[in-house]
This record gives sequence, structure tokens and C-alpha cells, in this order.
Amino acid sequence: MNIDEIEFEEIVQKISSLYQNKKYSDIKATLTEINPADIAVLFDAFAKEQQLLLFRLLPKEEAAETFVELDNETQEALIRAFSDTELREVLDELYLDDTVDIIEEMPATIVKRIIKNTDSQTRASINTLLRYPEDSAGSIMTPEFVDLKKTNTVEDAFKRIRRTGVDKETIYTCYVTDESRHLIGVITVKELLLHDYDDKIEELMETNVIYVNTHDDQETAANLLSKYDFLALPVVDMENRLVGIITIDDAMDVLVDENTEDIHKMNAIMPNEKPYLKMGIVATWKSRIMWLLFLMVSATFTSMIISNFENRLSTVIVLTSFIPMLTGTSGNSGGQASAVIVRALSLNEISFKDIFKVLWKEMRVGLLCGITLAAVNFVKIWFIDRTLLGMSDITFKVDLVISLTLVIEIVFAKMVGCAFPILAKKLKLDPAVISSPFITTVMDALSLLVYFGLATAILRI
Amino acid sequence: MNIDEIEFEEIVQKISSLYQNKKYSDIKATLTEINPADIAVLFDAFAKEQQLLLFRLLPKEEAAETFVELDNETQEALIRAFSDTELREVLDELYLDDTVDIIEEMPATIVKRIIKNTDSQTRASINTLLRYPEDSAGSIMTPEFVDLKKTNTVEDAFKRIRRTGVDKETIYTCYVTDESRHLIGVITVKELLLHDYDDKIEELMETNVIYVNTHDDQETAANLLSKYDFLALPVVDMENRLVGIITIDDAMDVLVDENTEDIHKMNAIMPNEKPYLKMGIVATWKSRIMWLLFLMVSATFTSMIISNFENRLSTVIVLTSFIPMLTGTSGNSGGQASAVIVRALSLNEISFKDIFKVLWKEMRVGLLCGITLAAVNFVKIWFIDRTLLGMSDITFKVDLVISLTLVIEIVFAKMVGCAFPILAKKLKLDPAVISSPFITTVMDALSLLVYFGLATAILRI
Repeated sequence: MNIDEIEFEEIVQKISSLYQNKKYSDIKATLTEINPADIAVLFDAFAKEQQLLLFRLLPKEEAAETFVELDNETQEALIRAFSDTELREVLDELYLDDTVDIIEEMPATIVKRIIKNTDSQTRASINTLLRYPEDSAGSIMTPEFVDLKKTNTVEDAFKRIRRTGVDKETIYTCYVTDESRHLIGVITVKELLLHDYDDKIEELMETNVIYVNTHDDQETAANLLSKYDFLALPVVDMENRLVGIITIDDAMDVLVDENTEDIHKMNAIMPNEKPYLKMGIVATWKSRIMWLLFLMVSATFTSMIISNFENRLSTVIVLTSFIPMLTGTSGNSGGQASAVIVRALSLNEISFKDIFKVLWKEMRVGLLCGITLAAVNFVKIWFIDRTLLGMSDITFKVDLVISLTLVIEIVFAKMVGCAFPILAKKLKLDPAVISSPFITTVMDALSLLVYFGLATAILRI
Repeated sequence: MNIDEIEFEEIVQKISSLYQNKKYSDIKATLTEINPADIAVLFDAFAKEQQLLLFRLLPKEEAAETFVELDNETQEALIRAFSDTELREVLDELYLDDTVDIIEEMPATIVKRIIKNTDSQTRASINTLLRYPEDSAGSIMTPEFVDLKKTNTVEDAFKRIRRTGVDKETIYTCYVTDESRHLIGVITVKELLLHDYDDKIEELMETNVIYVNTHDDQETAANLLSKYDFLALPVVDMENRLVGIITIDDAMDVLVDENTEDIHKMNAIMPNEKPYLKMGIVATWKSRIMWLLFLMVSATFTSMIISNFENRLSTVIVLTSFIPMLTGTSGNSGGQASAVIVRALSLNEISFKDIFKVLWKEMRVGLLCGITLAAVNFVKIWFIDRTLLGMSDITFKVDLVISLTLVIEIVFAKMVGCAFPILAKKLKLDPAVISSPFITTVMDALSLLVYFGLATAILRI
């Protein structure tokens, strides 16, 4: 069942009334009809103690799947309420990478309880995974994969999958390793199913293996999975030993999160991981205020430029009317270029070596855009602003200054907009941060310099 | 082998020199070491007639996989150069959804040749798929899936997979249908592998099936795949019959493309599908000029507002210096709110019913941001702009006008920024389009009205 909003309300009401009438077995029957991802959303509608009861009604496997999908606050509250036996049951059903994700978000007391309730082998794996840097391939991989030997037959492989597969996050891609655990090949279950039982893995496996290192960026790993249409990607350590795999569902989550982060950064917001409605007022304020402050203070330059020109501006005061249009247009032009380039960089469509190709392209696009806008603007100012709206102090020369400024500022904006993100990436800064709002602020100052420069020259003020 | 840029250059040179020495079997050996997705990128480095020869050196299956990854121009050129037999061989190896994707981008003469070289059953499927609206679930699904009957045993299922699986895009999720092809259950190969050969599908299958309709949006389908961590999602027609599946790799492509589109739209760029470096100057200009023109002309309002205030402005000309800072800050504040909301809408974190909750939150965040910025700004103007930079015509009242404007415009900006995208979605418009640049333009005008209103009241001009 794929739940829409109306159904959602109905289910919440149904469960609430069953809850009041203590019809727990009916609640249980209702919940088993629902996918764990949706149960987790349902939980939000209930109070803490009700959540615990609902959780206890779930069959073991669904309980674990639901637990993974809950938000950190609810997870923490549930763990606090769990008995040790309950906690162990949930932990037993979780995949290791999910356990690690949960541990990373929990306070120390909870972490201690989790660690206490896992066996020593799991504990060792958790400790290894926790040591990988945040956002690295190692930090999102799971060490639970199916490994085969090259001397195995297809039949051996199926036996191994049947014996160990239930605990593996994916069984569809199996990895072939040598005695020192070096990765020497991969084979998919599809291949296995389409071959005879006594065929040798060695002859069937793909030896041209694409993999990442534990310290590679998680986005790199996700992009590789997407590029090659894999269901899982092997991760090797510094000695080239296979230590884990990244599955496609985790890669998809990485892509979605990285995209959210990029969109936020491109709009002057600091990265944060909480969904919008769950973030408090102060946290939201914190994520937005730093950039706003920085950009506001940076605007001191534009104030200085205008202030220096103040006396001359007062002789042709009409020039003031077009300042927001000019700064707005250069901001939009630069923002277009930077958005396209930031996105192309994150999709690996361009790299630093393309910088001159990109600059040359943006210069010509900027010239085309500038000339088009200037032409339209020249006519618009003359017939609408001057004639229709009666701004009678607009002269031919004033119109010319405004239109010429447009051409020059747009070419500048396109070039600054495309060069900044590429240079940022080269300097190992985040291109998305050097984006729209920052470029807009730079372009505000540049545009005013061009505007006042042309005004001084052409109007002889 | 996972190719980086340096290796890439080396491989191109190696193949070029092998080509000149006519060592074709060595080229073949080199190419089989490389993943088709990388071969497609390599092709860009060679001339048209070389591409054809390289393509002919590829084994049949790799040839088809490479073909899918090529850009449309190269595909078209190859098809023109193919004999009918060659074309048929490639088409035979392609999955139907890929064939349809290619057909959609080809000129009519090529489409005719493709259709002529497919059997009548394939032709019928292609025609059905071509009729689904662009961006619908139907348009990205493939009709090639493994279907089972509920009376089948696990052994039957494996037999069927072995017999028909080679042509299916995924075999890992099998779909159970009744006599009228209604979808009644799903079962994964993992489940099959972990059960006994004589277990009945009926008893193992999951009957609580999540699916989409052919006319649902492709983004909805991709989001469901991501939410529920599926490898494939079934698609049913209006009569609830199973007609196809969407696989995770296609869903991932949809998410990446939709994200690119959102980022472009949020920066006033019209949607376009080509990678940055492959788009010509004129096409790039076309994708950017419409919004720039619209936004520039919209700025007529700001000119009018300033022009009306011109006489009073000339008496306190220092007010002009802060116009770019004020419009910039309100634009950035509104842009933050709209970016967060557009993203939350596309991730289904919020919907129309949340509008008052969102407005109430943004109002408070706006007030917090506004007060912080105003306080910093008040002090900054007094000690930096007035004292340090010597803008001596700044009075206490002028500073007050500027700082009060900040508070009011930021609250407005946050509320406009969050409300516009939500209302746009309610009106079935694209929230991403009603974003940053548009809101910035609206806020430019609003901010000036607040600024001049406060100036008139407080400075009595």
C-alpha cells in the first residue's frame, strides 16, 4: 500500500481508536499491512509512550526496519525505554552501516548501552567503521557482503548465499577475493543463475573491477554507482583488501543529501541535516545568519562607491533610479553562469583543465545576452520610462550610459560567475559556497564601478 | 578499471597509435578491459569514421551497452553508417526502454529505419511506450520483467528466470500476476534463494505491493524507489494491469536530471538536457535570455519607485548609498527561504497544508535575522561608514531608518520567499521557477517602498 495524505489521516485515526479500546492485535494486523518507511512516518502522530507500545507490536524484522527509518529523537527515546533484551533484538536485525549511522547521532550514554549489547566481533567492526572520516566511502559502507573464492563453482556460490545471505545487505553482487582478501573479481547473481551448477566462478567472474578506497569521498562513490548502473560498489583499504560495499540505496541517499546541501549552499545557507519542519527557530536562524551578516557587511563596498560618487550623482539624480535594475541584472547573469558551472562540476562534466574553454564560451554568451538586453533596455527606457512614465530628465546620453553598462557588466558577470566556482574547486574549496549570493555581492560593486565610470566619461560630470 | 583523467589521455593515445598501425585486435583487447560507460566517453576523442571502426571491434553485448551511453549525435551518425544487419544486432541487445529513449531523440528517417528493423512484437511495445506523456512513469518503464503465477513453486520460479532472465533488465524482483495480468504480489530473488525448492510462491510473496500508475510523474516514481529502498517499482495501467517496471538505475538518472533542472530553474535558466560543454552559444543564450529580459523589465517598478522619490532623495542623498545593501540583503533573505522550501517541497517534506506552520516559522526566523542584522548594521554604519569612512551626512535618524528597514524587509522577504513556492505548487506551477531571482525582484521593489516610507516618516522629508 502506497499511502497518500488522506489515507494517512485515516490510518492514524483508526490506530488511535483501536489504541483507546486496547485492541492491540487489530493494531498489529493494521501495521503489518504497512511498509516500515510509512510506519516510521505514522509514529510522528503518536505520543512517546504510545510509540513504545506500537513498536512492541511490530514483528521483529519490521521492527528493525521501522527503527532505521525513525528520526534520531524517537530512536533515542525508544532505546531509553527498551530493556536490554529488546535492544539486543533490534540490534541483531540491523545492518552494521545502519547501526553505525545511529551510533553517530546518539549521546554517549546511549552509545555505551548499544556497544554493551553487541557481541565482540560486531563491536570491533563498529569501531573500525566509526574511525572513517565523515562523508568518506568507508563511513557509509557495510562490511556485510557475500565473498567467494575463484575455485568455487556456481553451486558452491549458491550454497554460500543460502547459508550466509540472510544477514547480507545485498546478495546480488558477490565479490571474489584471494587468500589475502584482495579483490580479484565480481559476479552477479544474474550471471550465476544463467550458468550451469558446475561452472567455475573463475571463468565467469568480471575481473575488470571498479572500486573505491575507504578514504574516497562518498559523493565520488555515489557518482560511480550511478554512472556504471551498479547495485553495489566494493570498497578497499590502503592495502587493497576488500573491506566493505556501498549499496545503491545508500548511494541514492547520498546523492539526495548532497543535492540538498548544494542547493542550500548556493543560497547562502549553512549545511544542516534536519528536515525543514523539524528544525527549531534558533537552529534555522543559525544556519542562515552567518552568510547574511557577511554579505551585508561586504556591501560596505557598494556604499563606499556610491558615497564617493554622491556629489556627481546629485547633478544627474535620475541615474539613481536604475541602480537596482543594473545590480539585479548583473546578479542574475552571474548567478546563471555560476549555477550551471557548480552543477557541471558536481556531475564531473567539467574540470579545471576546461577553464579557458568555459571562459571563452561564457564571454560570448555574455556578449550575446548583454547586447540583447541593452537593445531592449535602450528602447524600453526611451519609450516607457521617459515618454510614458514621464521621467523627463532621461537624455539620450543617460540612456546610452545605462545600456552600455548592461553589456559590460553582463560579460563581467558571466566570466566571474563561471571562473569563481572552478577556481574554488581547484583551491579545494566548495564551489557551491562561492556561488550566487557571493557573486551577486561582487557584481554589485563591479557594476556600480562600470556605471559611474561610464557616466563620468559620457555625461562629463 | 576506474578511469581517471590521466589514464584517459593515455588510453586515447594508445588506441590512436594502434589504430594508425592497424593493430585492430590489440585495440579490441584494450577496449574489452574498459567499462562501456567509459568507452562511450573515449569515443568523443575520435573522428566519426574511427568511431565506427572502434564500435565494430566491440563484442556484441558491450557494443549495445556502449551504444546506450553515447550522446545522440554519435548514435545518429553510427546508425546512418550501420548496415541493416548491424542495426538489428544492436537493437536486439538493447532493453526496450533504452530503444524508446533513443527513438525519441532521432529524426524521422532514422526512426523509420529502427522500426523497420524490429520484429512486430517489439514494434507494438515501442509504440505503446512512445504514447506515454513525457516525464511520466510510463515513459521510463520497461515492459521486460519476470512475471510468475502464485501457484508456481520456488523451483518453477528459478526455471523461469533461467529461461527468460537474460533479456530482462532486472531479475532480482519478480512480479506475481493473476490471469488478467493484475499485480497480486512481489517476491525477490533473495527470498527465493533463502527458501526451499518446493515452497509455493503464494506463501512467500509480499502482497502489500507499492506501485505507480503509467501516468504518474517520473519524479514520484523515483522518490518512491528511493524512500522504500527498492531495486524496481511496478507500473500498472488504468485497469490495474501490470505493464512494466522502473529500475533503480533509471530512477537515479531521473533524480539527477530533476535536480539539475531544479538548480537551473532556481537560477533563472530554462530547462535543457545537454551537458554544459556540448551546448552551443546560441542554445545557451536562448536558455538564459528570457528570464533575464523578464526580470530586467520587471525592474521598471524599482525605477519608478526611486524616480517618484527622486526630489526627496536629493535632499538626503546619503540614503542612496545603502540601496544596494538593502535590496541585496532582502534578496538573500528571501532566497534562503525559497531555496529551503523548494527543496522541502520536492522531497515531499512539506505540502500545502503546512503553509501556516511555515509562515509562522519564517516570520519568527525573519524577525531573529532582521534584529541581528539591524543591530550589527546600526553599529557598523555609525563607527565604520560615518566615523571611519567619513560619510559625515549620516545622522542618528538616517542610521535608524536603514536599520529599521532591514528588520521589516527581512521579515517580508522570509514570508514572501516561503509562501510563493508553496502557492505556486498549489496552482500546479513549478515552485523552482518562482524562486530566488523572481523573489529578489519582488523584494527589491518592496524593500524600496519600506525604505522610502520610513525615510519620509522619520526624517520628515
